[in-house]
Amino acid sequence: MHLSANDIEDLERRRRAALINSITGFKPANLVGTVDAQGRSNLAIMSSLVHIGSHPPLLALVFRPDNAERHTLDNIRETGSYTINHVHAGIIDAAHQTAARYPGNVSEFAATGLTELWRDGHKAPFVDEAQVRMGMILRDELPLSINGTHMIIGEIVSLEVPGNAINELGALDPAKTDSIAISGLDSYYRSSLLQRMAYAKPDKAPRRL
Amino acid sequence: MHLSANDIEDLERRRRAALINSITGFKPANLVGTVDAQGRSNLAIMSSLVHIGSHPPLLALVFRPDNAERHTLDNIRETGSYTINHVHAGIIDAAHQTAARYPGNVSEFAATGLTELWRDGHKAPFVDEAQVRMGMILRDELPLSINGTHMIIGEIVSLEVPGNAINELGALDPAKTDSIAISGLDSYYRSSLLQRMAYAKPDKAPRRL
Repeated sequence: MHLSANDIEDLERRRRAALINSITGFKPANLVGTVDAQGRSNLAIMSSLVHIGSHPPLLALVFRPDNAERHTLDNIRETGSYTINHVHAGIIDAAHQTAARYPGNVSEFAATGLTELWRDGHKAPFVDEAQVRMGMILRDELPLSINGTHMIIGEIVSLEVPGNAINELGALDPAKTDSIAISGLDSYYRSSLLQRMAYAKPDKAPRRL
Repeated sequence: MHLSANDIEDLERRRRAALINSITGFKPANLVGTVDAQGRSNLAIMSSLVHIGSHPPLLALVFRPDNAERHTLDNIRETGSYTINHVHAGIIDAAHQTAARYPGNVSEFAATGLTELWRDGHKAPFVDEAQVRMGMILRDELPLSINGTHMIIGEIVSLEVPGNAINELGALDPAKTDSIAISGLDSYYRSSLLQRMAYAKPDKAPRRL
């Protein structure tokens, strides 16, 4: 199948959204926990998390303010705090359900059965069921004028991960935490390690670890 | 394992990079094809691709200008064109090798054995071996002042994907193209579909398709 810009433009709206949301390949499945100034919690599944830098440890999220992510964005602006929690295979149904457009006074924790976990020193709730949990502080917001979306950049200020999921180089193996990948808007995947590669050098052939 | 902001700061540099690069979960593995004004091609593996919007179809890439991605960023600025090509299981070794710091006059296509594919109407080379290929036009660049990285936003102006990898809603199933997920800097994963979910609604329980 070969589509031109015009062919993409001519697709029926929902088919275009399905195609373009899936065309980047596998995306990380994360739950973003927040609270508003009145203390009402919120939880939203997001797949737009991207690494910005390691020192300081910075991650970005892209928000579309016209959908269920709006409350999350509002809360991050209000409190400056949020959490990022990996979705694992055991909580896909509940995680997906957080995407429903609940009113602002309904907590997606209560609505989906996921459990709030509060840690001293962090304003926003973590997901108790998650195996990988990050406490985040808002560091920057960039409005993307090209289409009205917003990029939130935050710093990791706390990190919980099972020690046996860390490899000898210090990296997380997300297969060991049964972390899930998303494609598009509705498809959830389990991943298994195929190969690891040595650091690439111009004068060396590629080598598997 | 529970790390505070200070614990993260105190990690040895390479261990911190390994941990923070892997902490977001699974990332898409893509090869970005470019050419400079003198016609010299370049190819770079990148895992920072993120969906920005579907109408128009916009994707973002985050570049660290101090590493092997620099030539790619320079070329995109020079020509306004690039390609994004999914890495599949059969080309992981070559795709990983594009991360080596080759000099600017060496094409990673030639160095790794991947094949340039040129299409009428697009200035930058595609990867012939890839199953999913996107022709991109630069639409915006945002410098991220917080750490000196750069976000490039491009529009998809052409798209090639096997027809049998598109599901009934019009979405790509990246398992059907054997597309690969990355964790961290060196680990490559194959993913299999676990479940698909119906559109989430506040008054309906989560339902698997």
